Amino acid sequence: MPKAVLTPQAENFPAWYQDVVARAELAENGPARGTMVIRPWGYAVWELMQAEMDRRIKATGAGNAAFPLLFPTSFLEKEEQHVEGFSPELAVVTHGGGEQLAEPLVVRPTSETVVNHYFAKWIQSHRDLPLKLNLWNNVVRWELRPRLFLRTTEFLWQEGHTVHATYEDAAEETRRMLEVYRRFMEESLAISVVAGEKSPGERFAGADHTFTCEALMRDGKALQMGTSHNLGHNFARAFDIRYLDAGGERRLAATTSWGTSTRMLGGVIMVHGDDHGLRLPPAIAPHQVVVLQLDEEGEAASRIVAELGAAGVRAHLDARTHTSFGRRSVDWELKGVPVRIELGARELGAGEATLVRRDTRTKTRVPLDGAARAAAGLLDEIQQALRTQSRTFREEHTHPVTDFDEFAERVGDGGLFLAAWSGTEESERALGEKTSATIRCIVDAAPPAPICLITGEPATRTVLIGRAY
Amino acid sequence: MPKAVLTPQAENFPAWYQDVVARAELAENGPARGTMVIRPWGYAVWELMQAEMDRRIKATGAGNAAFPLLFPTSFLEKEEQHVEGFSPELAVVTHGGGEQLAEPLVVRPTSETVVNHYFAKWIQSHRDLPLKLNLWNNVVRWELRPRLFLRTTEFLWQEGHTVHATYEDAAEETRRMLEVYRRFMEESLAISVVAGEKSPGERFAGADHTFTCEALMRDGKALQMGTSHNLGHNFARAFDIRYLDAGGERRLAATTSWGTSTRMLGGVIMVHGDDHGLRLPPAIAPHQVVVLQLDEEGEAASRIVAELGAAGVRAHLDARTHTSFGRRSVDWELKGVPVRIELGARELGAGEATLVRRDTRTKTRVPLDGAARAAAGLLDEIQQALRTQSRTFREEHTHPVTDFDEFAERVGDGGLFLAAWSGTEESERALGEKTSATIRCIVDAAPPAPICLITGEPATRTVLIGRAY
Repeated sequence: MPKAVLTPQAENFPAWYQDVVARAELAENGPARGTMVIRPWGYAVWELMQAEMDRRIKATGAGNAAFPLLFPTSFLEKEEQHVEGFSPELAVVTHGGGEQLAEPLVVRPTSETVVNHYFAKWIQSHRDLPLKLNLWNNVVRWELRPRLFLRTTEFLWQEGHTVHATYEDAAEETRRMLEVYRRFMEESLAISVVAGEKSPGERFAGADHTFTCEALMRDGKALQMGTSHNLGHNFARAFDIRYLDAGGERRLAATTSWGTSTRMLGGVIMVHGDDHGLRLPPAIAPHQVVVLQLDEEGEAASRIVAELGAAGVRAHLDARTHTSFGRRSVDWELKGVPVRIELGARELGAGEATLVRRDTRTKTRVPLDGAARAAAGLLDEIQQALRTQSRTFREEHTHPVTDFDEFAERVGDGGLFLAAWSGTEESERALGEKTSATIRCIVDAAPPAPICLITGEPATRTVLIGRAY
Repeated sequence: MPKAVLTPQAENFPAWYQDVVARAELAENGPARGTMVIRPWGYAVWELMQAEMDRRIKATGAGNAAFPLLFPTSFLEKEEQHVEGFSPELAVVTHGGGEQLAEPLVVRPTSETVVNHYFAKWIQSHRDLPLKLNLWNNVVRWELRPRLFLRTTEFLWQEGHTVHATYEDAAEETRRMLEVYRRFMEESLAISVVAGEKSPGERFAGADHTFTCEALMRDGKALQMGTSHNLGHNFARAFDIRYLDAGGERRLAATTSWGTSTRMLGGVIMVHGDDHGLRLPPAIAPHQVVVLQLDEEGEAASRIVAELGAAGVRAHLDARTHTSFGRRSVDWELKGVPVRIELGARELGAGEATLVRRDTRTKTRVPLDGAARAAAGLLDEIQQALRTQSRTFREEHTHPVTDFDEFAERVGDGGLFLAAWSGTEESERALGEKTSATIRCIVDAAPPAPICLITGEPATRTVLIGRAY
């Protein structure tokens, strides 16, 4: 085997990440700072993620729709918190069709304002509620420290927007979508996440409550993988979304929004990847099995690919016999394909095939006739193994802490710290001033101490603290 | 039945169009001029169109990818014809993250320049060719006379980009994708189109040859439904896309691009719609069959929906028993659902159901037990009937013309005019000056006269002329 083509994770994790993204041909930087080109392999993973997420979202009763990329800056200004939060990140179109615009347009950073404007037009009666929309689109938020997939000026995402009759209904929807996200991440991405509420300092601009799914990367930093916001009556009031209830009374509606993005792909890379490249969970692997044909005669390889296809497996025939076997193996390892079937002259002569698992890198010889079945049978096992590893890693790197100095010393090494918290704004600010960590979320667990880790005030919540992307 | 809710087509076709788009809840105007909100019903049609088009594009060997929305204006300037064509339509971002940008960014009007820039980086050897990418995204072209779906400042589309070793390969790809489009329109949209080359005056900015699929709307105006461009060596030269051939020689590549957009939805509306609303071809109908439950007891209705679902039919149960039957029927007619099954007390009492075809508006009584099968059996028939009607309409409204004055008098009434053409730029200009019509495309047919309809010069081509959206 040729020598490692990636910087080892232990040596320099950010360099490893950059290497994988480039060498697995996932993405590269766009011509304008902070923008991204997603290459076919990366996009194929994203398409599988989209399809599965879309199915889960539609199962909740939401319908897809499209809202404009460009809208007047005045829209953003209708909700005070919202405009404050997003103003510093806006891209603004000032010229169109060769002329200066009378009113500049923003490139959407998120669509709450436009969507809620239309909600107000469309909703008349309680019979129109709940109304649930989901948008697959692109948004732009100016990014000063861009990193592919994790922080890009433009990113692809889904943003859901719903209207409900009552605050309680909106609260329930916010929780429901958080659970949809959590299960998608666990089941499809094989990423174990902590789901919980954000502290006020990390809340979405304009939300009453923000919930998050937080994952732990292999370098010990956390990644916010998706958020769900209870907007309460804030946007309904700003956009005058009212409806006639069953008794004929006019009432203020309540709204929610929730989103996940191409950022999740960064999470997949950093949770499952190793020094040989990506390790894709079979559920989102564009090729679940690659069959490497090692000489010009490819009859057995084609037959296995056909068998796999018939069994519903995404199988790919690698017939690049002009490229060395070693080079091709390294490529598929980099790209994270869960299972390889290698058909060399030696194997074929013995009526056998070599099966290689990407996750464990173990090789087994199997009879040629049973190779397709054996490979297909591994996929569930690999999916589960990755998920278990992700959970074990997170659990092993979650540390209860009760002493601030000890915590401050250890936090730079990574991991999540379970701590008692007072819930005050001052304590959150103090944490930010004294360390590079943030409260990732409030969790439903007994506090490890009666007093706040940061301030020593009486503790009211248990939180997970960590450094984050 | 309540009275017609739409302006009749014969009275005012543009008003009818606006009415249908609004009343069928397909789309409405966005807050900024020329932008569009696509509502769930319209978007669900678009999703079905996307899925089928995506399948057909992937079958040609193209992979999906994503390129940036924003890129420096200097990129556009690298191909001279291209920048000339697109400059007047650009939206320009001059401010980002609260600061004025050193170099303004354009909001992509199309991605040839960025994609070809990366092609140059990615392609080394003849083994890398052909490389075929397809992007599903949004583009912005400033529109002074916007009309929903047909001309909007932002629209959703797919843009394909391919690189080939030779000019001939690019020419072949251009033709292949034109045929993919033509078949999609005929088979999925049930729209009969004429496929042919554009005249130089209608060519894509930067292309050597542009091919188009042209459909005829019910008001006699043509609609360009999709285009495929042979860019020859123009972009390859501008971006220096070169490869080593099998003999080790460095050669200039050749590229193509091709696109179809949400505009096709406008075509579906205007080709199939009637005075009662949309008529959706079953292949792209979000609900292929709606079962109207007419009282609280919905067991029979639910059973039929389940049977249809099991048979692979997209079936929907309309259980809005609080809304009148008449109102609901009108709604589903407006929305173009191909088949309705009505289950009233009278029908149920007789062990029967009423089947209603949207295309012909004919009603049949069928036994309850066979209702699902009967409805499913109608879908192919309706798909074919709409396609045949579209072809017949186009053929009946295509007129050979040999006398310019006669043509000029008739062209305002609509239809396509088959004419002999000299192929000169002057004649194309003269046509535009004397009439509101344009050459829609060059067709492979015997010219109806030996001399050009417009100039009287010797004819070299046969063309279809008409007024267009």
